[in-house]
Amino acid sequence: MSKNAIIASTSTLHGGDYLEYLLPELGIHFKNCKTILFIPFARPSGITHEEYTKKVAVAFAKIGKEVNGIHEFDDYSTAIKNAEGIFTGGGNTFLLVAQLYENKIMNLLAEMVQSGIPYLGTSAGSNICGLTMQTTNDMPIVYPPSFKTLGLIPFNLNPHYLDADVQSKHMGETRETRIKEFHSFNSIPVLGLREGSWLEVKGDTILLKGNLSARLFLQNQIPEEIVSGSDLSLLK
Amino acid sequence: MSKNAIIASTSTLHGGDYLEYLLPELGIHFKNCKTILFIPFARPSGITHEEYTKKVAVAFAKIGKEVNGIHEFDDYSTAIKNAEGIFTGGGNTFLLVAQLYENKIMNLLAEMVQSGIPYLGTSAGSNICGLTMQTTNDMPIVYPPSFKTLGLIPFNLNPHYLDADVQSKHMGETRETRIKEFHSFNSIPVLGLREGSWLEVKGDTILLKGNLSARLFLQNQIPEEIVSGSDLSLLK
Repeated sequence: MSKNAIIASTSTLHGGDYLEYLLPELGIHFKNCKTILFIPFARPSGITHEEYTKKVAVAFAKIGKEVNGIHEFDDYSTAIKNAEGIFTGGGNTFLLVAQLYENKIMNLLAEMVQSGIPYLGTSAGSNICGLTMQTTNDMPIVYPPSFKTLGLIPFNLNPHYLDADVQSKHMGETRETRIKEFHSFNSIPVLGLREGSWLEVKGDTILLKGNLSARLFLQNQIPEEIVSGSDLSLLK
Repeated sequence: MSKNAIIASTSTLHGGDYLEYLLPELGIHFKNCKTILFIPFARPSGITHEEYTKKVAVAFAKIGKEVNGIHEFDDYSTAIKNAEGIFTGGGNTFLLVAQLYENKIMNLLAEMVQSGIPYLGTSAGSNICGLTMQTTNDMPIVYPPSFKTLGLIPFNLNPHYLDADVQSKHMGETRETRIKEFHSFNSIPVLGLREGSWLEVKGDTILLKGNLSARLFLQNQIPEEIVSGSDLSLLK
């Protein structure tokens, strides 16, 4: 088998229900799975693993899938090895990465997804699909042992990508400025993935999906817009 | 001598020049200094130490102060020990903290400011005045050896604090959500310092200055607005 992943900017579109806009895709993506293993470690707004898993179960019930939180298992490695499909939800990327390392499942998760187990990531769960988590938008609320992540795609992501608001009087850095700062010290390409966009990874192909274009940042180059449908597998 | 620091949310207000709104305060704050030692490590937008120091020198020339970048000195520790006044500018907090540790001057800088050398921080240079840098807004573009910072004040800061835009259709976390996530794992109080606000630290007194209120976040409590002029020294 070969890689089979959906890597989405966000779980939820404005005015929509949790995962609603993705459900038709997810029905196909997880068609051979009765159950989905959910990794709730990113804990958005600090909600518990139990609360988060319940929310995910409600969404997946709409396409006839059962959801088990990884925290329900005695042995996390065995849970991953036995999973039919895996979903890592959004929240805080520092927390998620710290927990994946602490529980010694970062490498195993990468291996399993490389070997073809259907994977879904949203937001923080997508961030970790890049080479490093260094283009996250999140606050460093915990100190992870490393910023290295799954490396399922040969570049980094900036989920929830936001264009600069030219009307704004706020002097904090724009997203583009932050990514430029990243490229002062790192050569890894960064894809700014707008809300409603996702990457469909099938083997060696990485297609941009959804209605919007994505913004691609290469070191020492002017950013460019990538249209939906483009293959990003040649990025290096 | 006792602590004597200005800890500002931002260097620049919308439509104003660099440091312009603070210059009257800075004339008083640095009145006994002919020269200011500038720490340019945070490198906003990746500009060089030289470019950044030039920009700062232009601003301080308006109040008759000479500026030397710490990178111009052979021995950074000696430069800090001999400084009449110190300014740490904004940019990327991860980079700033990594550089302070790499050059082994984090502790010395804390000692010098504790002992009364006049200090100015803006943005990232203010972030490091808290107990940890964990409530920064910046991207983790480099991996620092620790998130611990100067601890000049008994709480953390969130500079460029931004209220949630209720009109926004963007689903990324608000600043308040991010700080709430921080408080799921940390008990340190966090002060959201809006642009145009600063803290004036004189000995054991920490006064909120500027026209705006600040937003105070305590673990497990509803955030509250702190009016300008308040003393924050009793926060724990």
